[in-house]
Amino acid sequence: MAPPIAINVEAETDTSAVTILGPLTLDSVANRRSASGKLVAGVAASIPSSTFKGNAHEKKHKAKNWDYRLSLECRTREGNSLKKVAKYLMTPGLISLGGGLPSSEYFPFDTLSVKVPTPPHWTEAETRESGTTLEAGKYDLQLGKSVYDISTAFNYGLGIGSPQILRFVIEHTEIVHNPPYADWNCTMTVGNTSALEMAIRMFCERGDMMLSEEYTFSAAVETASPLGVKIASVPMDEEGLSATGLDDVLSSWDEKARGASKPFLLYTVPIGQNPTGATQGEQRRRDIYAVAQKHDLYILEDDPYYFLQMQPYVGPDHPDPPPPKSREEFLKSLIPSYLSMDVDGRVMRMDSFSKVLAPGCRLGWLTASEQIIERYTKHADISTQGASGLSQLLFFKLLDEHWDHGGFLDWLVHLRMEYTKRRNVIVGACDRYLPREIVSWAPPAAGMFQALHIDYKKHRSYPAKSLLELEDEIFMACIANGTLLIKGSCFYADPTTQHDTMFFRATFCAAPFDKIEEAIKRFGDALRGSFGISNDSNGV
Amino acid sequence: MAPPIAINVEAETDTSAVTILGPLTLDSVANRRSASGKLVAGVAASIPSSTFKGNAHEKKHKAKNWDYRLSLECRTREGNSLKKVAKYLMTPGLISLGGGLPSSEYFPFDTLSVKVPTPPHWTEAETRESGTTLEAGKYDLQLGKSVYDISTAFNYGLGIGSPQILRFVIEHTEIVHNPPYADWNCTMTVGNTSALEMAIRMFCERGDMMLSEEYTFSAAVETASPLGVKIASVPMDEEGLSATGLDDVLSSWDEKARGASKPFLLYTVPIGQNPTGATQGEQRRRDIYAVAQKHDLYILEDDPYYFLQMQPYVGPDHPDPPPPKSREEFLKSLIPSYLSMDVDGRVMRMDSFSKVLAPGCRLGWLTASEQIIERYTKHADISTQGASGLSQLLFFKLLDEHWDHGGFLDWLVHLRMEYTKRRNVIVGACDRYLPREIVSWAPPAAGMFQALHIDYKKHRSYPAKSLLELEDEIFMACIANGTLLIKGSCFYADPTTQHDTMFFRATFCAAPFDKIEEAIKRFGDALRGSFGISNDSNGV
Repeated sequence: MAPPIAINVEAETDTSAVTILGPLTLDSVANRRSASGKLVAGVAASIPSSTFKGNAHEKKHKAKNWDYRLSLECRTREGNSLKKVAKYLMTPGLISLGGGLPSSEYFPFDTLSVKVPTPPHWTEAETRESGTTLEAGKYDLQLGKSVYDISTAFNYGLGIGSPQILRFVIEHTEIVHNPPYADWNCTMTVGNTSALEMAIRMFCERGDMMLSEEYTFSAAVETASPLGVKIASVPMDEEGLSATGLDDVLSSWDEKARGASKPFLLYTVPIGQNPTGATQGEQRRRDIYAVAQKHDLYILEDDPYYFLQMQPYVGPDHPDPPPPKSREEFLKSLIPSYLSMDVDGRVMRMDSFSKVLAPGCRLGWLTASEQIIERYTKHADISTQGASGLSQLLFFKLLDEHWDHGGFLDWLVHLRMEYTKRRNVIVGACDRYLPREIVSWAPPAAGMFQALHIDYKKHRSYPAKSLLELEDEIFMACIANGTLLIKGSCFYADPTTQHDTMFFRATFCAAPFDKIEEAIKRFGDALRGSFGISNDSNGV
Repeated sequence: MAPPIAINVEAETDTSAVTILGPLTLDSVANRRSASGKLVAGVAASIPSSTFKGNAHEKKHKAKNWDYRLSLECRTREGNSLKKVAKYLMTPGLISLGGGLPSSEYFPFDTLSVKVPTPPHWTEAETRESGTTLEAGKYDLQLGKSVYDISTAFNYGLGIGSPQILRFVIEHTEIVHNPPYADWNCTMTVGNTSALEMAIRMFCERGDMMLSEEYTFSAAVETASPLGVKIASVPMDEEGLSATGLDDVLSSWDEKARGASKPFLLYTVPIGQNPTGATQGEQRRRDIYAVAQKHDLYILEDDPYYFLQMQPYVGPDHPDPPPPKSREEFLKSLIPSYLSMDVDGRVMRMDSFSKVLAPGCRLGWLTASEQIIERYTKHADISTQGASGLSQLLFFKLLDEHWDHGGFLDWLVHLRMEYTKRRNVIVGACDRYLPREIVSWAPPAAGMFQALHIDYKKHRSYPAKSLLELEDEIFMACIANGTLLIKGSCFYADPTTQHDTMFFRATFCAAPFDKIEEAIKRFGDALRGSFGISNDSNGV
């Protein structure tokens, strides 16, 4: 027989003893935790996540209220009526025959274990040799062996996520971004794609338009389109979304011509943008945020590549820059997020573990004002019901119990150096194999993508053939030459807009180095063939 | 360096050698599998799931087409444009720089293992003693050790789910339900709550009404309501949803009075209904299906309690009926599902692992016609992106590699016997402790819930106080007496309808036996106190 299940046990936390005035540092997190006492959170525990934040936020102002911008669906979503009885569950001695939660006695899982890297031995080979095996028991919580276990994680949870992993991401968010308003909060998500869909449903009605980079993540278009939400595209330059372009689009917005009222949502991938690989610098963000304030926009900051920011590109003939000397230097090297400059609470930042741990676990989180988090989690409670508890337990074991915040940052530095190597391989191959008279590229500062811009007007069939016809001809020439890159036209934010730029997206995130090199060589050959230029030309 | 990733590798299956004319049996599944050769499915592999079905379906007719009933959102949802390049990925020797999938080299997980029951030793204590430890390696697929591994499951997947676990649920569905039309298919889901929301969005526009039992799963109401979909309630009796009641509601539908066109969706929990515990018998289902045909309804069969069907209730003075003698006898003992009688393809059956393995893993599946599955998975591809790969891997290891279909059925028989014991405990306690002159109950045949019907008109404050006032008074008396049950009014499908029945929902699924007994005793005392009847009365 299983021990009885504790439901909705409040956290035994006391943050009053701790005084932290600035943002959380690694040390202050550790101090705060040890002063707070042990986290106690049973099945589907609802713990005010403000208890996980430093108290610096108490001195900050509150976020703007967005009632007037919420969709009808979002405004009218009420809470789960059964949760109203939760307050009675605290009655001493009460026996509940209320919640229809199965007994963990019938979960056929005893002990779960996973082998993971022992810092600082991050590679696959090292992990095989000297990895640490983390173990989660069924009743570790009651045995005092851990604050999370199988009987808890494998039972029903809440849309906001388990307090165990939520505490970690809230602390991480404060360490990295330190939002400048008081009532920010986080919720776990089942990934940014789901979070984006839920955000569009939260803020848009059928017939609305939202703003995005003129080349954008195709799933964003495909998510918005069936909801009757079209995308108004904003010009880009080498730093991605253009602030003046954004202001122009909004200042000259013609409701009648557009068939839609002035947009409220701005969807942007600010770092290592998919598909262009562009990264917005700090000043660019400040300019865009000012435009958002001017036109009262709400920003969806979709930032899966934040920790794929790389070392500066120095070219093949220079020694590689050394990695950041310390965790503090690493944090300082990162471009400030929109969240970090969000004085109004007009940013929903979507973070993902997909690019830094594993995408298949479908676990991410988002940060926004309390009002938005409350609306989001109400929706999650009656749709996804939150992320897989198994994923939450595994990531908790790795991040919180094993690596801790410092170890996680060290892992992220490791990834930074790995992606830097990959980026350098593809840029080196471009230098060696591509005909510069018709292709141009900028080494990406972050992310997974290298955009290769084609001067299609130099094609012998131009202007007899259109941009899209030529793009397809080049794509097929690549296939015939044994390489596949993605056409830029797959990423049109607004397919009705005229485009006069052509590029192909190549990713350097997955293939082995020699294959990347060979694929770029084949791409160069395909281009030469299609353009009818000499085989030994590489433009140098 | 990680081995290269195989993307979209087709299954090396050959079903032509196998001839199965009837439904799948356990043996025929085993034969078919061994004749089909090894499943080969890499990262985000898309395999036609018809290859997992017996070929009996080839002799059946096709499902009805529902184009004219799909919502605008559903009709206009297009596929992921990047998936269009998938066909080129099969080109021999091709190097793809296309998909933005991270390299498994950077997934910091080496080996995953879990301890589970060794059949037939199902209990927690036995599992601790003699459980089997299942292990998933990072590259088992390439090493030939398994058809599924960490590098595959932890990478991006498809909305439909991984072929590895999908094969198991398709075979299981054919063994248990054997749908009578040809083009049925399954998709994995992140649970029935999410599936229900997606189904409502698929079939309803704002302003529509759907049908449901007059007392229904409260999350269904809360999911539908913000989408602008109200519920038209259908009368119930001791077998749950009434077929004549359903026909009456539809035959007398007055669009103007209702403010909505005649409903198309029927949402029903046919077994161990939440909250009433009622179970629809086979004839009742046939009657309801005929009404659905008459009025052209589409049925959402939400059936998480299917395998919580229990042994017959024989009362305290009779020996317990022995468990089913064989797997075949067990399968025959189960009430036929709507899916099993769905000649038209007008049923979406939602199955869940939540009540039979663990709810926290957020993994279920649904069965419907190919058209509906295609629309559903298109949505999943750009929202949830499918269930956690970690959950899929764990359940695959347990169900497919360890227990197999037979072992899973044996586990379900074990659960049947456990829930029978629990049901008998609560019914026994009701017999002993409840005042029969004001409470009545029928022993549930399935599920987790015992409804306790109150003859509130015998209350000393009736009719001065309303049904809802009296219900609240009794609820508070229960809390004061140290027990919590859920009010029937929490489950009104349509809060605007007049109700003249009162009941409380008690669950016997989680608390230890002695606590269930004590809680029912306290409930009886609270009722006696509230009704002002003698303390030693139990109506016997």
